[in-house]
Amino acid sequence: METVKRTRMSPEERRAQLIDLGARMLAERPLEQISVEEIADQAGVSRGLLFHYFATKHDYHLAIVQHAGAEMLARTEPDQTLPPLEILRSSVVAYLDYVSDNRNSYVSLLRGAASGDPEMREEFDRTRSALAARIIDQLPRLGIEPDDRIALAVRGWLAFVEETAISWLREPVISRGELIDLIVTALPAVTLPASVAAALLSQG
Amino acid sequence: METVKRTRMSPEERRAQLIDLGARMLAERPLEQISVEEIADQAGVSRGLLFHYFATKHDYHLAIVQHAGAEMLARTEPDQTLPPLEILRSSVVAYLDYVSDNRNSYVSLLRGAASGDPEMREEFDRTRSALAARIIDQLPRLGIEPDDRIALAVRGWLAFVEETAISWLREPVISRGELIDLIVTALPAVTLPASVAAALLSQG
Repeated sequence: METVKRTRMSPEERRAQLIDLGARMLAERPLEQISVEEIADQAGVSRGLLFHYFATKHDYHLAIVQHAGAEMLARTEPDQTLPPLEILRSSVVAYLDYVSDNRNSYVSLLRGAASGDPEMREEFDRTRSALAARIIDQLPRLGIEPDDRIALAVRGWLAFVEETAISWLREPVISRGELIDLIVTALPAVTLPASVAAALLSQG
Repeated sequence: METVKRTRMSPEERRAQLIDLGARMLAERPLEQISVEEIADQAGVSRGLLFHYFATKHDYHLAIVQHAGAEMLARTEPDQTLPPLEILRSSVVAYLDYVSDNRNSYVSLLRGAASGDPEMREEFDRTRSALAARIIDQLPRLGIEPDDRIALAVRGWLAFVEETAISWLREPVISRGELIDLIVTALPAVTLPASVAAALLSQG
C-alpha cells in the first residue's frame, strides 16, 4: 500500500499552496503546460480536490496569473521615502528585476497564447491599470497635474516599457543601466512639454 | 436550375479577389467570424476552389491579415517632399485615419483572439518591423544617428502609438489633434536627450 504524505491545511492555506505551486511552475514553462495532475501530485492531493478549489483548469490558470500580477505589483511598490524621480527609478529597477527573474513566464504570458484569451487579457489589463493609477498618483510630486491627455500618455508609456523590456530580454542589445535610463527618462518625456521635461531631468 | 454568375479570372486575380473580399468583411466583423462559405458565395466560386488557393481557413485568414498590414504600410508611406518633422506628422495622421477607418478590425486583431496565434503575431511583428525600419531610415534627416538604444526606443514608441491609439478609439478622452501631437512629440522625446528633443520640437 502506498503512503501519500498529506498535510492538514485550512481551505485558504490549501488554495494558496496550489496557486503558489503553479506560480513556481510558471517560472519554468508556459502556462498552457501547467497540468493540474502534476500540481495535485506535488501538493499530495487528489485531482478532485484541486477542482474543488478551481472549477476548471482555466480558472486555475487565471488564479496563477492573478497571483503573478499581484507579486509584480508588490515588488514594484514605490518607496515613498525617496525623492520623486528616484521613486520612479527604483520602481523601474524592481520591475526589470521581476521580469528578469521571470523572463520565460513574463514573455510567454504577454506575447504567447495566453494573450489571445479574453479573461487573461482582462487580468493583464487590471495589473496595467493598477500600475497606471500608481504612477498618476505620484505625478503631482513631480509637479505634473494629471489630466486625460497625461493619463493616456501614461498607458502608452507602460506599453513602451513592456515592449522595450521584452525586446531587451530576447536580445539585450544595450546594457541594463542604459535600458533603465531609457525607460525612466521616457516617462516625463512623453507626459510633459519637451522644455519642462528637459528642466526636470537636468535637476534629476 | 440555378444560375451562378461566374467571372473568368486568372489565378492571380482570383486569389486577389478572395483576399479583397475577406479584407472588406474584416472591416465589419472579427477575423474569427469570416467564413470561407460566405466568401466563396460572394465570389461566386465553390468552397473547394477557395481551398485550392488557401490550404486551410487559417491560411486564408493569414492572407487577409498580410493584406491589411500591407495596406497600412502603403497608406502611411512617408511623403519625402515634406520637412522631416512634417513627414512624421503626416504619417501619424495617415495611421490614425487608417485605424479610424478600420477600428473594429484593428482593435480585434491586435487585442483579440488573433493576438494569441503565433503566425498572426509574426505577421503583426513583420508590419511593426517594417514601420520601425522606415522610421529609423528617416532619423538622420532629423539629425539623429540611429544606434541600438534608439532602435529599441523606436520599437517602444510603436507600442506607445498602438496603445494610445487603441485606448483612444475605445474612449476618445482627448481630441484627435491632441492625440496627433502626443504621438508626434513622443518620438523625439523618447529617442533623444531631453534638451535636444526640446530644441528640435521648438524649431517646429
